[in-house]
Amino acid sequence: MGDMTLQLFELVGADAGRPFSPFVWRTRMALAHKGLQAETIPWRFTDKAAIACHGSEKVPVLLDGDKAVCDSWAIANYLEDAYPDRPSLFGGDGGRAMARMLNWWGDLAIVGGIFPMVVADIVQRLDPADAAYFRQSREARLKTSLEEAAATRDRAVEGFRRSLDPLRLTLKTQPFLGGAAPNYADYIVFGGFQWARIVSDFQLLQNDDPVYAWRERLLDAFGGLARATPGYPV
Amino acid sequence: MGDMTLQLFELVGADAGRPFSPFVWRTRMALAHKGLQAETIPWRFTDKAAIACHGSEKVPVLLDGDKAVCDSWAIANYLEDAYPDRPSLFGGDGGRAMARMLNWWGDLAIVGGIFPMVVADIVQRLDPADAAYFRQSREARLKTSLEEAAATRDRAVEGFRRSLDPLRLTLKTQPFLGGAAPNYADYIVFGGFQWARIVSDFQLLQNDDPVYAWRERLLDAFGGLARATPGYPV
Repeated sequence: MGDMTLQLFELVGADAGRPFSPFVWRTRMALAHKGLQAETIPWRFTDKAAIACHGSEKVPVLLDGDKAVCDSWAIANYLEDAYPDRPSLFGGDGGRAMARMLNWWGDLAIVGGIFPMVVADIVQRLDPADAAYFRQSREARLKTSLEEAAATRDRAVEGFRRSLDPLRLTLKTQPFLGGAAPNYADYIVFGGFQWARIVSDFQLLQNDDPVYAWRERLLDAFGGLARATPGYPV
Repeated sequence: MGDMTLQLFELVGADAGRPFSPFVWRTRMALAHKGLQAETIPWRFTDKAAIACHGSEKVPVLLDGDKAVCDSWAIANYLEDAYPDRPSLFGGDGGRAMARMLNWWGDLAIVGGIFPMVVADIVQRLDPADAAYFRQSREARLKTSLEEAAATRDRAVEGFRRSLDPLRLTLKTQPFLGGAAPNYADYIVFGGFQWARIVSDFQLLQNDDPVYAWRERLLDAFGGLARATPGYPV
């Protein structure tokens, strides 16, 4: 399996050059960690047919030659197993097992915590067909309008910041969740912050927060890979 | 360094045979994981002088020959480094780094979440001098009486159970946080449940919760080490 065969379906909005899914960013960072290049296939919410043939309704979907791997967690495990001679994403079997819980924490506390605060911004980044689909499906999930969900974000962000305490306290004694250097645990959490950064100018973190400094370090990682995708102009 | 030199200061109440500190239980399980025996030194809250010479105000304190190691996280790292040929607590460097965050999650969500629900039970397990110290210091921390803190536990436990979602979802696809077998990530979290079980009969978990089944597996681990310390009769 050579690098040149890798292709990654990435969620984009109106601008095909700004992939923003938190889950795709986990995969983007994991690929960079492994030193792998993937060809980007821009994908939009309503483009279900493009990935249905690969057995998925969501991105990321990674194609490696004739193999399709769906779901960011499965992709991370696939990359670790298929490219064992590249830098490890998990740092051993213990790390792989523990990352499963950090992945759920990332889904619930980070993606779930950020979602209502940026949801009204996301819809503005989408093309018209996706915007209609997104509004309908997310308002059903939120049981309120996108704008109502976002209206309380100045208060909600305080609870969100408190929920970061396990991350914040960890970063007081080590620069990354992965230790001296980042690993997949960092990419899990960072994906959510990168998503928010691209779609919204809402300030999730205070500048003096250790989590802010950690996010800066990850924006700089891999030659500034994540920083190179700018936020939508506001 | 031979096993026979290990000694562990363990917090006890009126009954010196029921060590109950959540942090000591992390160390007890870690020692068992490493196949190490430690001589128990029962210790009580007001017995500050006994451990002050080792530079600590809290237990666990582990003595290994002429070396004293304080704090459960430091002890786990010490055991991993001093006994590298024994089964690994972290399963590699990635696991050790990620366990730092799980340790904070355990401190905040588990120990911190359980504390107000069992605090009024703890004080009843202590001898008179410790009970007076405990009430004064903990009521200052809680800014209310122990009994007031516990009075709302029927409602508080619902939020506590929800806070376990990252653990619960992980246990749907693997039997332990450490994967197929338990490792220090499990002992971090389990320590809090074992503490609650010994000092209180309050039902933290519903019987059909995957977390309940996981706790049962850890009570059975190492020949039933944790189950062998019974809860105080109520």
